[in-house]
Amino acid sequence: MTARRVVAFGGGHGLSASLRALRHCAPELDFDITAVVTVGDDGGSSGRLRAERGGLPPGDLRQALVALAGDHPATRRSAGLFQHRFAAVPVGVPESGTTDPDGDGAARRGTDGASAGTDGLAGHAVGNLVLCGLMELLGDPVAALEHAGAMLGTVGRVLPMSRQPVGIEARVRGVDPAAPDEVRTVRGQHQVAVTTGRVESLRLTPAAPAACAEAIEAIMAADWLIFGPGSWYTSVLPHLLVPQLADAIVSTSARRLVTLNLAAEKETLGLSVADHLAALHQYLPELKVDLVLADAKAVGDPEPVERAAESLGARLVLAPVAVRDGTPRHDPAALGAALVPVLRADR
Amino acid sequence: MTARRVVAFGGGHGLSASLRALRHCAPELDFDITAVVTVGDDGGSSGRLRAERGGLPPGDLRQALVALAGDHPATRRSAGLFQHRFAAVPVGVPESGTTDPDGDGAARRGTDGASAGTDGLAGHAVGNLVLCGLMELLGDPVAALEHAGAMLGTVGRVLPMSRQPVGIEARVRGVDPAAPDEVRTVRGQHQVAVTTGRVESLRLTPAAPAACAEAIEAIMAADWLIFGPGSWYTSVLPHLLVPQLADAIVSTSARRLVTLNLAAEKETLGLSVADHLAALHQYLPELKVDLVLADAKAVGDPEPVERAAESLGARLVLAPVAVRDGTPRHDPAALGAALVPVLRADR
Repeated sequence: MTARRVVAFGGGHGLSASLRALRHCAPELDFDITAVVTVGDDGGSSGRLRAERGGLPPGDLRQALVALAGDHPATRRSAGLFQHRFAAVPVGVPESGTTDPDGDGAARRGTDGASAGTDGLAGHAVGNLVLCGLMELLGDPVAALEHAGAMLGTVGRVLPMSRQPVGIEARVRGVDPAAPDEVRTVRGQHQVAVTTGRVESLRLTPAAPAACAEAIEAIMAADWLIFGPGSWYTSVLPHLLVPQLADAIVSTSARRLVTLNLAAEKETLGLSVADHLAALHQYLPELKVDLVLADAKAVGDPEPVERAAESLGARLVLAPVAVRDGTPRHDPAALGAALVPVLRADR
Repeated sequence: MTARRVVAFGGGHGLSASLRALRHCAPELDFDITAVVTVGDDGGSSGRLRAERGGLPPGDLRQALVALAGDHPATRRSAGLFQHRFAAVPVGVPESGTTDPDGDGAARRGTDGASAGTDGLAGHAVGNLVLCGLMELLGDPVAALEHAGAMLGTVGRVLPMSRQPVGIEARVRGVDPAAPDEVRTVRGQHQVAVTTGRVESLRLTPAAPAACAEAIEAIMAADWLIFGPGSWYTSVLPHLLVPQLADAIVSTSARRLVTLNLAAEKETLGLSVADHLAALHQYLPELKVDLVLADAKAVGDPEPVERAAESLGARLVLAPVAVRDGTPRHDPAALGAALVPVLRADR
């Protein structure tokens, strides 16, 4: 059978779960996988690199690359290197030199103008620094990701949703528990992800970033588009807010599948499973979906989810896709097993 | 003809020149190359990483890896990445979040406890961070270098002279131009390298670091050992001060070649070409050398150099090995062309 061209959208752990699941289908299906990744992160290592060095926040791109890394021991080790995070270290400020009292030339000392608390590497994943360096060196994030993919022997390709970093902002009701009806603007992906209020609307800044041309091409050539699982507001919906991506997503002949989350996150507290589907319609009303894949236990009563799926044109498929220890994480093998018959089916 | 097992000692640019020259011999000679690299650096990016993270200073190891990197475009690009150095960037301290006035979530902000002047990446070569990460991840510098070598498709192998970083200190006469006869202790490789006084003696701290076992093995199995070119006190002589390495260097059946520098450096100001050879004898009196390779122009009157070579048991070979623009740098192709007949000759 010919290769299925699959484009998976998302960011962070949810996208990784989706990509790992697709790789688990490999014995049964021949996939040409493209990951299209959000570029809104402004927290942690990625946020620091983005703020200080100006390129795309690398963390979500790194996670997707690692999820697709080859199985050879050397590429597995490189993937481990990409994920290795520098720990915090205490940094003093004595200077070495002719007056170095220990005489071993290795006295702990501060970097030029560095902190007294820790060096500037603390918290950075090596892969983030590699991606940051490649983007600076090659001048283009797509070229940088292609090279990083070669370093990791990835099966498939990782693309950013846009070559420019974006901001995410939300109008949120009840940010302050003392004023549950007040609606405030929460700015930045990290702040939106951890908000405990209810997100009423979401927008990108700039409002209409240019889509990555290679991502549009991949969408138009795809057999399947896969949305979710993942942080709904900060990893799944942002793609629908990039006008050129939304156009391609709506106009491609590819079929569309939504994988629902196993549990609500902070940003989606109060959102039912059906509400997640309604949010897709809210932000891209023209979106039609072919299939919604969900875990029966997470869904509970399937009836409202079925109705929400139908309103998008989709059939609901229930399958056991969670890990067995009860934590709300997708099991790549189980999710892959659920995806195979779905993605294999001809129209 | 069977492969010649060559071990090249040094650090920094001199060792790179030697390794690149050996690669230029490849069409005519089949080499099995091992670079044994000093681990005394305490300046710049390497010095910061060593002081703050505690592993081997990675810069000289990185330079040797890059000199041996494969010719495939992908490995050339990875070598470029290893050499890419993060520039200094201005870093402010506004915090993003709900009060971010720009609302783009990408406001410049300081890292936790970071400097007001620049972030902690400034000045670091990406390859130094990769090596630092690999050493942390794999727990052993030799394993880290093996993996980094695979990432770069190196022809040959890079080993540290010791698994532990060392300090370098020198007794130097005339550090202070106002007291030309005063002898002071200068501590740290960087300080020794830039001292303008005359080095009277050199030592490592600890005085007898354990040699890297794999380096000893390579020396004992070698056909040729190559010393220099390079910073004599900080890159060439330190190997002779590691007792187990010195023993192996003296007792191996390999032949020994010294490539002389083209010009004096700060640390060797006042040292004649012949004095460089005398320094080898001073620090390892048992050392016998088979060949001394030098550039005729740099040597000037060959007679004292010939005599110094003879006192080590060596024959002096003069060849044009400098680049043609007049700067005191070895041309890899010319140095390689000079090495081929020398290294090809049977005993």
